[in-house]
Amino acid sequence: MTRTDEKVRYLPESQGEDLTPVSAASGVENVLRMLEGRWKLVILFHLFGGKVLRFSDLERAIPAISQKMLIQQLRQMEADGIVRRIVHHQVPPKVEYRLTDWGQSLCPALDALLKWAASRGAFEDVPTSGDG
Amino acid sequence: MTRTDEKVRYLPESQGEDLTPVSAASGVENVLRMLEGRWKLVILFHLFGGKVLRFSDLERAIPAISQKMLIQQLRQMEADGIVRRIVHHQVPPKVEYRLTDWGQSLCPALDALLKWAASRGAFEDVPTSGDG
Repeated sequence: MTRTDEKVRYLPESQGEDLTPVSAASGVENVLRMLEGRWKLVILFHLFGGKVLRFSDLERAIPAISQKMLIQQLRQMEADGIVRRIVHHQVPPKVEYRLTDWGQSLCPALDALLKWAASRGAFEDVPTSGDG
Repeated sequence: MTRTDEKVRYLPESQGEDLTPVSAASGVENVLRMLEGRWKLVILFHLFGGKVLRFSDLERAIPAISQKMLIQQLRQMEADGIVRRIVHHQVPPKVEYRLTDWGQSLCPALDALLKWAASRGAFEDVPTSGDG
């Protein structure tokens, strides 16, 4: 059983940079920090697909989040360059949120993580029980 | 330049599962939880590439980690199915660590995250300053 061995690259090959285990780990860690907390990922997955949502749409889509927390999470994602806030100067003013192109392009990488998690059962040297 | 727009899938397409924003977010969150903490990523990147290391090799490779912490991190990664501990019954006993095939196959997904982070400058609608 050779499984996925041929498809899998075993070392990061990021743009000819000289990555050491430490610099690679710290690069991934920076990304994880941007996604930390339950809400940012939920917001991301609501906005993937080029969706443009008003604040009230997001509130409706994520009823468990408080208004204050939603504002805070969106601000952080905006500061990180993932979310774009678009203000339409009209009366009353309309504010919409969408992902930046960069934020949008995170989708395949997160998809790869989901696929990796889902592939666990296909590997024979992994115990089947995931929880412990 | 048109950037990566054509290469980028905008919605997760994980194995025909019915993913909602909430279930996708929680799936990614589970993965992030497995990688949490600085040391696990460093250990991972030391073991990627099919490397087989003894405990003392890992200690030498990551001098900043305490022995206790290294043991703990390796145990958690073993319980998560990412690391395999191989005991050679000899005198004195030899213990080696390597990634499971599944753990190994996480490499391309982490690489995708690194590439995503590095691609920031290529997107015009993202402010250049990343820190704030």
